[in-house]
Amino acid sequence: MPPSQDHEWIKELFFRAAFVRDMGIELTCVGEDYVETALDITGRMTQQDGFVHAGVLATLADHTGGGAGWTACRRDQTVLSVEFKISMLRPAMGPRLRCRAEVIRAGKSVIFTEATVLGGDGREVARLTQTLAVVPIGIGNR
Amino acid sequence: MPPSQDHEWIKELFFRAAFVRDMGIELTCVGEDYVETALDITGRMTQQDGFVHAGVLATLADHTGGGAGWTACRRDQTVLSVEFKISMLRPAMGPRLRCRAEVIRAGKSVIFTEATVLGGDGREVARLTQTLAVVPIGIGNR
Amino acid sequence: MPPSQDHEWIKELFFRAAFVRDMGIELTCVGEDYVETALDITGRMTQQDGFVHAGVLATLADHTGGGAGWTACRRDQTVLSVEFKISMLRPAMGPRLRCRAEVIRAGKSVIFTEATVLGGDGREVARLTQTLAVVPIGIGNR
Amino acid sequence: MPPSQDHEWIKELFFRAAFVRDMGIELTCVGEDYVETALDITGRMTQQDGFVHAGVLATLADHTGGGAGWTACRRDQTVLSVEFKISMLRPAMGPRLRCRAEVIRAGKSVIFTEATVLGGDGREVARLTQTLAVVPIGIGNR
Repeated sequence: MPPSQDHEWIKELFFRAAFVRDMGIELTCVGEDYVETALDITGRMTQQDGFVHAGVLATLADHTGGGAGWTACRRDQTVLSVEFKISMLRPAMGPRLRCRAEVIRAGKSVIFTEATVLGGDGREVARLTQTLAVVPIGIGNR
Repeated sequence: MPPSQDHEWIKELFFRAAFVRDMGIELTCVGEDYVETALDITGRMTQQDGFVHAGVLATLADHTGGGAGWTACRRDQTVLSVEFKISMLRPAMGPRLRCRAEVIRAGKSVIFTEATVLGGDGREVARLTQTLAVVPIGIGNR
Repeated sequence: MPPSQDHEWIKELFFRAAFVRDMGIELTCVGEDYVETALDITGRMTQQDGFVHAGVLATLADHTGGGAGWTACRRDQTVLSVEFKISMLRPAMGPRLRCRAEVIRAGKSVIFTEATVLGGDGREVARLTQTLAVVPIGIGNR
Repeated sequence: MPPSQDHEWIKELFFRAAFVRDMGIELTCVGEDYVETALDITGRMTQQDGFVHAGVLATLADHTGGGAGWTACRRDQTVLSVEFKISMLRPAMGPRLRCRAEVIRAGKSVIFTEATVLGGDGREVARLTQTLAVVPIGIGNR
């Protein structure tokens, strides 16, 4: 099976992730080797100083990175996050965050992605680099 | 002001973080240079394959790391996550995750922590290393 | 003192780093918020399979990142690597590696950079993200 | 073939890595799932302020991590560094650095390790977390 950028397939993978759906992360664009998402910030997403919690930024960027990885693997494969690093460049505020993730290298068993998160004022608030494992669908255990 | 391991102070910092409170993260132990937490997994915390979402693991470990950092700074200071890296060692399942974070080096302006997350069966499911910036309270912008 | 992109100053900081000079890392370009370097690969830079050792890639990218950070700080300040993460995208070969590092966010006390390393065939072989601490010259201890 | 902790095998893998041999990294102990090394610091290993260069710490910790990974894989397999993150906890000085790396999770295709580097005074100067890919010997390309 060739790589696929089928939007419906990627949409389903976002929809089936309860944590992502519950948080309200929207898939806004799917391209070859990249995915874009957005998230409306609500009061329950903050940390102790009123900024967006790093865990929210990490969830948004990690899942968007995974989405980019899906565009680079076959339909009988899926990806799992092996590890990611995220840098919090600035305190993040809403009302709406945008994220774009790109594949920077797709190997047979490992895909590397990078994601950037923009705050409500359009400035970059976080950057993530991620390693994904490519696994057959149904195999969740490395 | 000397360093403080005042449980009430740390508890308040967990309580004031809406994302952490909303998710249900519990502060279970506070010691000198370490903090322990726990989280009951619910259906809304999963990713597309039914495992705990990496964003949940990241939120738990990042905030617990921040809690450890608080135990190592003065009462007129707070900490902000500069960056963290998290490795997903195994697929994570509930019913209850436990996390322990320790300070591995506390400098004047930077604190390094490490956190480990255990799954429902007691095996380690994720490990995080984190850099915290020590900032005066009320200054959220580096 | 304003930020400075004085090439001679940056050159001196490369020259004074014995490990970098000994390895043969060349400073090829200095711009506002970025630095470019190059390295001719020799037989003593390999790992057990004949590829360039990850430690060579890390040294090149870390020091180039530090160079970018220097362009963003004052002349009475210097930078120290707090942490970096490097991803090895492909096995790296010579005869000559090129590296470009950019500042992605310069705060008062913390600078974030990203560096990319290209192999002899022009393809990206490694990507690094780095956190630098900005410190007064002469203060090597955070 | 079962996992092997054959010292000679691991020694050879250190010896065949020219960059590691040239730098003078010594393999001091091999155990089940861990490896210890040491490095005498010379004048050519410093950065611009006279401390050990982060690239030296990274080389030492990365290769020691790889050594730990070798103890956890079969004799017809080898490991490649996919990525690592290293935190510089304190300025590092000689005369001799010691490093210990441990496997924290060995999967079929991915091994996670952690390494700690101690400075001449016995205090921890750096900590590394690493992802290794397990590959058949002779296959250097993921």
